[in-house]
Amino acid sequence: MSAFFSSKHTSLVPYVPGEQLNDKKYIKLNTNESPFPPSPGVLEAVSGEASRLMLYPDPDCKPLLSALSKVYGVDESCIVVTNGSDEILNFAFLAFCDDEHPVAFANHTYGFYKVFAGLYNLPYEEIPLTEDFRIRVEDYIGINKNIFIANPNAPTGIALPLSDIERIVASNSDNVVVIDEAYVDFGGESAVGLINKYKNLLVTQTFSKSRSLAGGRLGMGFASPELIADINTLRYSTNPYNINRLTMAAGVAALEEDGYYKDNCKKIIDSREYTTDALRKLGFDVLESSTNFVFAKCDRIDGGELYARLRERGILIRHFTKPSIEQYNRITVGTKEQMEALISNVKEILEEK
Amino acid sequence: MSAFFSSKHTSLVPYVPGEQLNDKKYIKLNTNESPFPPSPGVLEAVSGEASRLMLYPDPDCKPLLSALSKVYGVDESCIVVTNGSDEILNFAFLAFCDDEHPVAFANHTYGFYKVFAGLYNLPYEEIPLTEDFRIRVEDYIGINKNIFIANPNAPTGIALPLSDIERIVASNSDNVVVIDEAYVDFGGESAVGLINKYKNLLVTQTFSKSRSLAGGRLGMGFASPELIADINTLRYSTNPYNINRLTMAAGVAALEEDGYYKDNCKKIIDSREYTTDALRKLGFDVLESSTNFVFAKCDRIDGGELYARLRERGILIRHFTKPSIEQYNRITVGTKEQMEALISNVKEILEEK
Repeated sequence: MSAFFSSKHTSLVPYVPGEQLNDKKYIKLNTNESPFPPSPGVLEAVSGEASRLMLYPDPDCKPLLSALSKVYGVDESCIVVTNGSDEILNFAFLAFCDDEHPVAFANHTYGFYKVFAGLYNLPYEEIPLTEDFRIRVEDYIGINKNIFIANPNAPTGIALPLSDIERIVASNSDNVVVIDEAYVDFGGESAVGLINKYKNLLVTQTFSKSRSLAGGRLGMGFASPELIADINTLRYSTNPYNINRLTMAAGVAALEEDGYYKDNCKKIIDSREYTTDALRKLGFDVLESSTNFVFAKCDRIDGGELYARLRERGILIRHFTKPSIEQYNRITVGTKEQMEALISNVKEILEEK
Repeated sequence: MSAFFSSKHTSLVPYVPGEQLNDKKYIKLNTNESPFPPSPGVLEAVSGEASRLMLYPDPDCKPLLSALSKVYGVDESCIVVTNGSDEILNFAFLAFCDDEHPVAFANHTYGFYKVFAGLYNLPYEEIPLTEDFRIRVEDYIGINKNIFIANPNAPTGIALPLSDIERIVASNSDNVVVIDEAYVDFGGESAVGLINKYKNLLVTQTFSKSRSLAGGRLGMGFASPELIADINTLRYSTNPYNINRLTMAAGVAALEEDGYYKDNCKKIIDSREYTTDALRKLGFDVLESSTNFVFAKCDRIDGGELYARLRERGILIRHFTKPSIEQYNRITVGTKEQMEALISNVKEILEEK
């Protein structure tokens, strides 16, 4: 830390992204990317847009809002797009949270919520999951705090039904409830349909998982026009050109080929069911996932050891050292072939014990 | 504003980007873009990278830091890359400024400095330019504030010599001095060579102007490893994947073809000299520009009227309504052909008066 760093950041602990190793070719099951490439129209759109890169992008992102409006059936005034969904989450913390509006989120959830709370020195509460890693809805009813819920949750993969989400939103009408639906396309129920009913609801999504654009950085928020206007006030006060031309073109093209991505989601769900079954047959405890990853532990091998042994064999999964989940690993669901390779390697590792 | 927007943002006034009109084909001289397309290698790199978009980008941005390190002759630990240079400026305000470290910048300069000061509720001082729109160096000597100077300045186009910048940096060793060199490649003297000498110096640049990548959103900061580490703490606490794969590939490719962009800068400088001479012959007062724009007024026509009349004729320039500069227009320097069209249209407009 330099002598110039503001004292307000002294205890800031940044987010740690998953490993991006290049020392050899890995089967990469550690950062919940799609195993499928972007659709042909995306490749074409990106190539076509490159020759216009000397011009600023449209700061209002009109083509992208128009395409999202059609696919999601919501008005353009209810949508904002961001440089990945981390940016919409950042805006939500900055826009709506302060000393009078503290924050609440689960003790096991997307690690960035705690980082944002630290960044803005916000009072926050981590609400414990149940012993079986579920969100207890009652813990969130009328708590008078801004609430961030990943649904489905990470790293557990467990989804809350929409009726539970609605109860939480309805009971906290003086606070903003953010439902982070990064993984919703793999089996969750989206709350986007509720944004016209609840002025305090912000739903965030991303093109990183189901739409094969993790490398393009495109996230979005759905909410009442009033909440979206607040976020745009911040967007125009930080980075009005936050969406570059290439990502904008990629996003529009991806939305035009939505069927391709829906098919991929089905394949990933099939692959997830295969993986869950196969791991359970090997003695793993696998949480019920509605996402493109599974969260699993096995009494026959330490979680950290399994991670390390798989890594030696060229398979990357994500291990967290946080107490009470340190026996688990989060395994991204790839293609059937990738998951078969995972399972046969896990089997061999267990046999060697 | 919604009922949920934090009271800290009540008086926030966002930045207003230049118009991006699509109602007809304009000669676009209003947002200081390059009239030249990106180099062939950029188009190729972007197309090649598109098929890898399902994978997250490298959060450490190693290939880009490596390429910048070679071209600028500074260590990789002294560089950070951002989603446009607005993001590095945002990080600098958030990292180094607070109630004990107020901010100073010129009263006529890049409009975003004041927006950032407002966003973080920072105490700030706007230091008046001289009557001929110059920065008076004495006003910045030992002022015990974090200082933001655009050099060359916008919208004036006037550059300070490096010796003056060094005096300011040296005399404010307890504060961070940010030199925003968005336009430096068109005739300014860069302060990048001073970063090893002064721990309190942050130099920001962008690929938007001289490198034809306004649509790609790529900015960077050069400073001591300590300042860069602080900024990376914020980058990893807001958006570790802030540089998408396509922009990263475009940036690396652009640096490999630096000669193309240097040639374009020469053409723009020639075109600027032509424009300055021609406007002066028509009776304009044109400030001495070291950038890719000129700032000019004419006693024969009101500034706002000239802007409007040119717009009717399909030529967009930038007019600011701020008192004391409202008679001026900021005119981006395009190709020689574009500037000849500008001049002949201005001539006709003046003759019609």
